[in-house]
Order: sequence, then C-alpha cells, then structure tokens
Amino acid sequence: MNQGSDHLDRVIDLLSKMPGVGKKSAQRMAYRILELPNEYAFELSESIRALKEKLRYCSRCFNFSSAELCLLCADTRRDPSLLCVVEDASSIKNIERSARYLGLYHVLQGVLSPMHGIGPKELRYDELLDRVAQGSYDEVILALNPTVEGEATASFLAESLKLRNVKVTRIATGIPMGGSLDYCDDVTMASAMDNRRPMN
Amino acid sequence: MNQGSDHLDRVIDLLSKMPGVGKKSAQRMAYRILELPNEYAFELSESIRALKEKLRYCSRCFNFSSAELCLLCADTRRDPSLLCVVEDASSIKNIERSARYLGLYHVLQGVLSPMHGIGPKELRYDELLDRVAQGSYDEVILALNPTVEGEATASFLAESLKLRNVKVTRIATGIPMGGSLDYCDDVTMASAMDNRRPMN
Repeated sequence: MNQGSDHLDRVIDLLSKMPGVGKKSAQRMAYRILELPNEYAFELSESIRALKEKLRYCSRCFNFSSAELCLLCADTRRDPSLLCVVEDASSIKNIERSARYLGLYHVLQGVLSPMHGIGPKELRYDELLDRVAQGSYDEVILALNPTVEGEATASFLAESLKLRNVKVTRIATGIPMGGSLDYCDDVTMASAMDNRRPMN
Repeated sequence: MNQGSDHLDRVIDLLSKMPGVGKKSAQRMAYRILELPNEYAFELSESIRALKEKLRYCSRCFNFSSAELCLLCADTRRDPSLLCVVEDASSIKNIERSARYLGLYHVLQGVLSPMHGIGPKELRYDELLDRVAQGSYDEVILALNPTVEGEATASFLAESLKLRNVKVTRIATGIPMGGSLDYCDDVTMASAMDNRRPMN
C-alpha cells in the first residue's frame, strides 16, 4: 500500500536502518524533514554524504579524521605519555565528554571474537604494538567495553604488552557488565576512568 | 571539545534536531552511517534531498505528492463518496496502515489554535468546503487528533458542514485523549475508525 509517494517510503526505509529507529520513528523523522526549511534538509543530505566522502582513518590512532592525522593526534596539548585503547571511534566521544582523560587514543576497530573469525590480524593490534614499541608511553589504558569479548581482548592485550615496560590499566567496571560505552552517562564514565585498575 | 572531525559533529547536530533523537542517539546514528557501505549513506543523502526537491502538495487533498495528484487521489479504486479530514499528512499513513478506510483524504495542514494565531485562513479550510460543495460525498470523517485543539476544530468543521447535506462523523476516541495518531497502534486505529460517531 503506497500512501502518496515513493520518495517518502524510500527515506523511511533508509532511516529505519539506523540504530534504535523503528518504522514509526523513521516516519516521524521523514515528516519532520518535510516540515523543516529546505536548508535543513539540504545540509543534512550534504553532511551525510560528506561523512563518507571526507572522512578516513587517522593514520596514527585509526579514529575518523578529515586529514592524515585526526584533531586529537594533531593536538600538541594532549599528554603523549598516556595511550587509551578503545573498541571503536564512538567510544572516544564518550570518554572525551567525561573530561577526565587528556592523553592519546588507539582505536582497535573491534574486539577479538573467535566465533566470528576475528583474531588480532583483523584488528589494529599490530599497529598498537608498533606504537607502544616506538612511543614513550608511561601507561596504556584499556577502555574496551566490559563485555565477554572486551574482557578477553583486554586480558590478551595486557599479556602482549607485558614485555614492553609499560603500565597497563583497565577502566573500572563501574559500567554495568554486559553494557556498552554508548549508553554510559558522563558521571559513571568519569568514575570508571578514575578507578582504572592495573592489569600487570 | 572536538573529537576528530567537524564533519561528524555537523551530522550529529543536524540529526539531533529530529523528533525523539537526542545527542547520544544522533551520535550512534552517525557512527552507524560510517560503518555501513558508502551506497547506503549516498542513497540516504540523496533521498533526503529528493524529499524536498521532488515532493509538493497534491492539488486536491494537500497530501505530499511527486505529481499534480497524489497516488491516493489518482487511485480510481478509492471510494469517492468518503472523505477523511486529517490534521497532517503523516496521519494518512497511520490510517492506511489500519486498512479500514478506502475513501479519499483531505489534509487540513494543522488545527485551529487562536493562541498561535491559526484560524481557518491558515488551514486548508476553504479548500475543504469547496471540495465538499463540488463533490458528491456521502460522509466526511473527521480524523483529527483528539487533543483540545483537534476537538475544537472538529466541532467547528461539523458546524461549517451542517448546511452541505453531508453526514459528518468523528473517529472514536479509542485513542487516548491528549495523544497523537503518530503513537497509535494499528488495532486501536482500526477500532477508532470502526466506531466513528455522527456529529450532526
């Protein structure tokens, strides 16, 4: 059953592929776009295209970036003796919002998951070891999600980094086990960062 | 604080203007767009632009349409003796989903709201009266949201249509008072359509 336009159905279909967006939310979003000024829709359209066309991985930390180095890696005010390892780039935003960490990041781009065929080679694992070998980090903070895979990956990384003469810590699991950094409020995030515990 | 890219922040800002989308949902959506294939992002971008560039109002019922007449008005299988008046175009999708109505529609594009300076002239009110005068409708169904303004507008329309020799009905308020068609499930919608009550 088609209620007026294929253009609308197409936007609704595409929007409902977004996380947490069902058919009805997508419908309300599409109609809101129609209500809002043209400039809004055109800017949203353009900004989504730009995401894919302009963004690539930072060559050092594998965060998303519009230049060779991301703004965080290029920022000389960040503490170069601290390295925080995260599962994906979105975790960086959550940690930054807690305003409790001022060092550098390394995006692992996933966690170990033998069931899904994801081993160290599928992650930015070699790049992490290289960075730690070449850099002068005092501490590597493992800020992976406290899931089964995240914990296993953290143990694996801690073991790998044992010989590198670097302190390895894990953010405190004030974050509920099985949860995700995406749903963590800023205060819990800050406390988890404060309570990081040594792993080796 | 900028965490890697202006492009990301721009998309997140724009997405968080959508109904029911906060800063965190917008962030998760932006990162999901980055994860999904380029084709998805480009199609989403293009489809949002097309909404504004290709859609206009149907000249008869004021639903959104990509042609002079919308697909519903152009569909000769719809019952031309029934006219359903709705507040906005998104209500049509909700009613169509209930599959309990096969007549035509008229989008009022709002409801009377003296507080906000919205009188009959700001709505598609004259167009409704013209349609009813020129058409041969047996029944006009008022499917406005059961809010204070919606009820007042329904009474006003019922009064206006009194002299036109047409039966005017109101969808049953099986839908909770103060609510919106947008949040109504299909079964409640169908029952509300079945239990429409005469108003004159």
